[in-house]
Amino acid sequence: MKDEFEFIESIKPEKHHQSSLVLGIGDDAAVYQSTKDMREVVCVDTMIEGVHFTKDTLSAFQIGRKALAINVSDLAAMGAIPRFYLVSIAIPSEWNDHEVAELYRGMKHLAGQFDMDLIGGDTVSAKESLVITVTAIGQVEEHVELYRSKAEPGDAVFVTGSLGSSAAGLELLLDKGREGFFNEEEHQLVKLHQEPFPQVQVGRICADMMVRMALNDVSDGLASEAHELAEASEVTLIIREEDIPFHPALRATKEAVEMLEYACNGGEDFQLIGTICDSKVEELVQKGKKAGVSIHKVGEVQPKSDHPVYIQRQKGTEPLKKNGFNHFR
Amino acid sequence: MKDEFEFIESIKPEKHHQSSLVLGIGDDAAVYQSTKDMREVVCVDTMIEGVHFTKDTLSAFQIGRKALAINVSDLAAMGAIPRFYLVSIAIPSEWNDHEVAELYRGMKHLAGQFDMDLIGGDTVSAKESLVITVTAIGQVEEHVELYRSKAEPGDAVFVTGSLGSSAAGLELLLDKGREGFFNEEEHQLVKLHQEPFPQVQVGRICADMMVRMALNDVSDGLASEAHELAEASEVTLIIREEDIPFHPALRATKEAVEMLEYACNGGEDFQLIGTICDSKVEELVQKGKKAGVSIHKVGEVQPKSDHPVYIQRQKGTEPLKKNGFNHFR
Repeated sequence: MKDEFEFIESIKPEKHHQSSLVLGIGDDAAVYQSTKDMREVVCVDTMIEGVHFTKDTLSAFQIGRKALAINVSDLAAMGAIPRFYLVSIAIPSEWNDHEVAELYRGMKHLAGQFDMDLIGGDTVSAKESLVITVTAIGQVEEHVELYRSKAEPGDAVFVTGSLGSSAAGLELLLDKGREGFFNEEEHQLVKLHQEPFPQVQVGRICADMMVRMALNDVSDGLASEAHELAEASEVTLIIREEDIPFHPALRATKEAVEMLEYACNGGEDFQLIGTICDSKVEELVQKGKKAGVSIHKVGEVQPKSDHPVYIQRQKGTEPLKKNGFNHFR
Repeated sequence: MKDEFEFIESIKPEKHHQSSLVLGIGDDAAVYQSTKDMREVVCVDTMIEGVHFTKDTLSAFQIGRKALAINVSDLAAMGAIPRFYLVSIAIPSEWNDHEVAELYRGMKHLAGQFDMDLIGGDTVSAKESLVITVTAIGQVEEHVELYRSKAEPGDAVFVTGSLGSSAAGLELLLDKGREGFFNEEEHQLVKLHQEPFPQVQVGRICADMMVRMALNDVSDGLASEAHELAEASEVTLIIREEDIPFHPALRATKEAVEMLEYACNGGEDFQLIGTICDSKVEELVQKGKKAGVSIHKVGEVQPKSDHPVYIQRQKGTEPLKKNGFNHFR
C-alpha cells in the first residue's frame, strides 16, 4: 500500500543511512544485508491513543520516542544490537502535520542514540485514535541465548536501573496534567515516565558474558515479569524488598510500601530483570559500573515450589502475585 | 508489552516451525538465522476496520488472509522468498474470540501456501476499530535488485494475471453485501476481491532471470503503479488498452470502458507490473506459462517525456493520470 501522508517529509525513510547494511529502500519493502555469524532479532509493538497513551501526559515527540523505546527494550532483553525500525501509523484527522512530524522526530531522536535506521513503513488514515506500530530489527551473536527460560536454582536475580519511577511519574501526570507544576523530584519522575531509556548497554554486557543467563525487560512491572521468568524457567524467584533499587526522587516523595507497589505493579520502566549464576553476579555488577549503568542483585532462584515468586520483607516472606503487590489488601 | 489476549490459543506463534531458520520465540522478540548469500527483505502494512475493510464485504478469515497477502505481495515485488510474519493487532470489544481466531486462521492459511512461519507479534485492546499490522520478512539472493527505478527506454512493460477484477468484486459486495446473490461470473469477481493470491511465483521467476528488470505490485491500480515506476525510473510508460488482461468474468459483465477504469483506478488486484528488455519479454512470458502463471506484455518504455504514463486506445493515445482513468470526464 502507498503512504497517504507522503507530503510530510520527515516521515520518509532516511536516504543516507548510518548503516552500510541497508541496500534498498523506497519500494514497498526494504532490503538489508545480514551480518556474518549474527542472528536476526525482530519484534513488534502497537500503541493506541486512549488505550496506551494520551496527549494529556506525553507530547507527540515523547509518544514517538516511547513507541520505539518499547521495541528497543525488547531487543535489549535479547542482548541484541538495535539496527533498523519500520513504522506503521494510522493518523486521525485530529492530528496535524506538525504533531506527526514531532512523533517521527521523537523516534529519530532515540534511534540516533543507537545508530538505528528507519527503513520503511506505512502511513494510513485512521477514524479517530492514532495507532502506531513499530517493528524493530536487531542482530545478536550466534552463541547468545538470553531467553527467559534460562534461569536455574542457585542463580542470583538482578535488575537494572531503578523501578517504579515511571508509574509514579504517570500518576503525577494524570493528576496535574503535562503543563502542571512539578517540584524537582516530581519533575524527575515525570521525565522517567515520559522518556524512558532502554537498557541496550546492559543487554550487550550480558551478551558478552558468555555464560548462561535469563533476561527479560520490565515493561509491565516487576511482579508480572518475575512471574514470566519463573514460569518459563520452572523455578521460584525470591526477591528481597530491601534490595529493590528506587530512584532518589521516588524515595523522597513516597512511603516504602508505595514504592514497592509502584515497582511491582507499575509498568514502563523498561529496565531489565535477569538471573545469572550467583558466583558471576558480582562480575556483572562491576562490568555495569565500569560502563556507567547500575545493576543490582535483588534476590535468588530456588527450585520450583508452591508459588512462582516470593517477596521477602522485614515482617516475613509472602507470595508476590502476578498482578502485583497491593498494600490496600 | 504483553499479549492481552493470550488465552486465544490460535494466535500464539507456532511452536513447531516449518522453517529450521527460527531459533527462539516466545520471548517478546523472535530470533532467526539469516541464510548465506541471501539478503533480508522486510515490509509492514496496516489495515483498519472501516477504512481499509469492513465485515460487510470480508469474513474474518478473509480479513486476516488479506492483511498477510498485502505484505506477501510487497515481498513478491522484490523477488523475495516469503519466510516469516509478525502480527500486531488491536482488538475492540465488538470482535469475539471466534472472529479473532478466524482472522489468524486466514493468515495461517495463506502462510501455509508459502511455508511462512508466524514468529511473533502483539495483541492489544482497541477502543472501537480493529487494527491489524503485519510485518513480513523474506529473503532474496544478493544479485537481485527488482526495484521500481530500474526501467529503461526500450524495455517492454508487462503485468501478471488480470486487472480490475478486485475492484469489480468490491463494487458487487458493496451493492449486495456478503450474503447477497451472485451469479457465476459475479461470484468469481467477488472471490478475486476477497481472496487475492500474491504473485510470489512470478517474483521468483523474475529473480531467476538474472537480468535488469523493474518490478512493482499493483496494489492501488494500474495508473498509480505505472506512475510510480515511471517516476522512479525517470522514463515514460506507454500502455496499450487492448493488451491489458481482463478476467473472463469481468469481460462477461462489464463494458470495455468500465473494465479499463477498474484496471486503472481500482486497487487490491495484487498483480505485478514490471519492465524487462524487449528482447527478453517473450522468454519471461514462456517461463510464466511453464509455471502456470500468466504474464502479459502490455506496453513499452520510452525516454522521459511530458507525461509519465500514456494509454494507447483505439481512438488515440492520451495521458493516463495518476489518479486513474475516468470515463465520466
